[in-house]
Amino acid sequence: MSKLIRVELGDRSYNIHVAPGLLAQCGQFCRDLKLGHRCLMISDANVAPLYGHIVRESLLEAGFMPHVFVVPAGETSKSQATLSLAYDEALLHGMDRKSFVVALGGGVVGDLAGYAAATFLRGIPFVQIPTTLMAMVDSSVGGKTGINLPQGKNLIGAFHQPSAVIADLSAFTTLPDREYISGLAEVVKYGVIQDADFFASLEKNADRILAREPETLAQVVARCCECKAEVVRLDERESGLRAILNFGHTLAHAIEQAAGYGKFLHGEAVAIGMAYAAALSVSVAGLSNEAAERIIRLLEKFGLPAAVSGLNWSAVRRAMKTDKKNAGGTVRFVLAREIGRAEPGIEVSEELLEEVWNVIGQ
Amino acid sequence: MSKLIRVELGDRSYNIHVAPGLLAQCGQFCRDLKLGHRCLMISDANVAPLYGHIVRESLLEAGFMPHVFVVPAGETSKSQATLSLAYDEALLHGMDRKSFVVALGGGVVGDLAGYAAATFLRGIPFVQIPTTLMAMVDSSVGGKTGINLPQGKNLIGAFHQPSAVIADLSAFTTLPDREYISGLAEVVKYGVIQDADFFASLEKNADRILAREPETLAQVVARCCECKAEVVRLDERESGLRAILNFGHTLAHAIEQAAGYGKFLHGEAVAIGMAYAAALSVSVAGLSNEAAERIIRLLEKFGLPAAVSGLNWSAVRRAMKTDKKNAGGTVRFVLAREIGRAEPGIEVSEELLEEVWNVIGQ
Repeated sequence: MSKLIRVELGDRSYNIHVAPGLLAQCGQFCRDLKLGHRCLMISDANVAPLYGHIVRESLLEAGFMPHVFVVPAGETSKSQATLSLAYDEALLHGMDRKSFVVALGGGVVGDLAGYAAATFLRGIPFVQIPTTLMAMVDSSVGGKTGINLPQGKNLIGAFHQPSAVIADLSAFTTLPDREYISGLAEVVKYGVIQDADFFASLEKNADRILAREPETLAQVVARCCECKAEVVRLDERESGLRAILNFGHTLAHAIEQAAGYGKFLHGEAVAIGMAYAAALSVSVAGLSNEAAERIIRLLEKFGLPAAVSGLNWSAVRRAMKTDKKNAGGTVRFVLAREIGRAEPGIEVSEELLEEVWNVIGQ
Repeated sequence: MSKLIRVELGDRSYNIHVAPGLLAQCGQFCRDLKLGHRCLMISDANVAPLYGHIVRESLLEAGFMPHVFVVPAGETSKSQATLSLAYDEALLHGMDRKSFVVALGGGVVGDLAGYAAATFLRGIPFVQIPTTLMAMVDSSVGGKTGINLPQGKNLIGAFHQPSAVIADLSAFTTLPDREYISGLAEVVKYGVIQDADFFASLEKNADRILAREPETLAQVVARCCECKAEVVRLDERESGLRAILNFGHTLAHAIEQAAGYGKFLHGEAVAIGMAYAAALSVSVAGLSNEAAERIIRLLEKFGLPAAVSGLNWSAVRRAMKTDKKNAGGTVRFVLAREIGRAEPGIEVSEELLEEVWNVIGQ
């Protein structure tokens, strides 16, 4: 049930380990990486009580000196203030350029801890230990780190690849349903943008996935990581291809902002955004009606929303950051040509944006 | 009198332009780099009134939309608070991933602006326009950017190479003597660590350099940039060789801290540190007495200090961050084997550290 995925990025290459029970082995993994003695382990108030002691003890047993910094759970911890506290903790702990950071938690912890590692002493190593499905299949892989500003999410950040990603599938046993299902939105995304066979296997194994069956999950998480690793290998800093990972995300970010952060989980907004992008794809990218329906059906099977109500189009449109063309009122989107193949930069007219919203957004 | 130095770093390569009168051409240089429309021009309260309008007009004429952000002069602007204001200004100005930052000033402005550029939207381009000798020959080249924490200098930062360095030698006409002479310490350093012929030319042309003769300065600045570019090319992220650039800096940083920041200019502390390192080099690295004397004589000729009084050894020693060996009370230093050749990681005993201090530090 154990899987190993290699992210090939020259001297920044690293392994993703996927298996149940890895938390208790993380000290050994860190030792194999020949990291320095001291480390700052950043976790949040939900995850630290569940798994903090396992990771800390594993690090201690492997000969490391971990110092634990627990931040409040939730997006507000991706702030300049919390970042500044993380620096203070690192200095209090006497960390130097050979020390490292461990991120134990979901996307918020991974982004914050990764950014702290990217910038402390001009960059020290860090290890991602994602504990949510969303973090395992998306945010922990690929090196995007960062924090929010009051003006918007992820406005400050750095590309800083982890030294390893340790995905312990046992963490799913404590993951709330809504969080788990939210992560499935990104899983569906990889099928749509990169791998038709994987999409079909999700359809086939949907019940097993919903039951969180460990063997199936090992396959699913590993395949998502492979998909992401391949895109990141080809375009580490998002100068082109990597944009396909934003399939569904243009509307998702706008919905999250227009509805007020916290109302939707990220994956829920992404699911709505994918339903929207699928409909746009039918109109202008040659996606078949049948394929679009399969996408919607799979989202609904997983219990994800494929439509939204109570939001006003003009508010959503204002919040939508679209890659505007010079003239003529067309904007550019990541769209699917067919299941398994997406393309960034496809032109969509303002009229179509609103017309499709009127189907999805009621 | 115009010089062009290429810093070869693969897809992060860039040019250093050295000549008088370049400020008025900086818009053209930025246009050649195919940078985005909007830019944030960061300068300080000393430099902005002197040169801000020239740079701003040049950018406007070249079709850019510059927004000027002036910070207080001095080290205190390398803070989290000022950085946060820089982000706010960038967002107010509607900057996106294609926008860029212009750093107009000395090392403080370059480090702050470069770090803002490194982290805003996970990194946007920036152009260095250094206006001090210190910034031209040292801080503007090589991609080290960062800010201070209350706990110490440069604790937060990133490696982020500029898109170009524009060194306008005309800026020397307004540079105070003490600032100018401080910069000469780093100039001497390149001779000691990398280029014996250059060191000899500094001895020969000392009077011309002190008179700020433009043709001589063009040669000197260009040669220093070449030296630094070569070291950075071989070891961009300071995993080994780049450490030789810290010749004299171990004691310098300790003196700055022990004396209280602001008492010594950085170059003054570096000059004392080089005199100290030269004496250590005679004892354990095979540097001849005659070579050490030439170093001291050149520093003194330039009006730089080669000794210091009123500082207590134990305070200086505490402030000295030395690369400690596991056991036995030896520490590691960058030392000179001969003029033109330095080596990092040479062992020095605690006893010798203090013994040589008793010569330099009285």
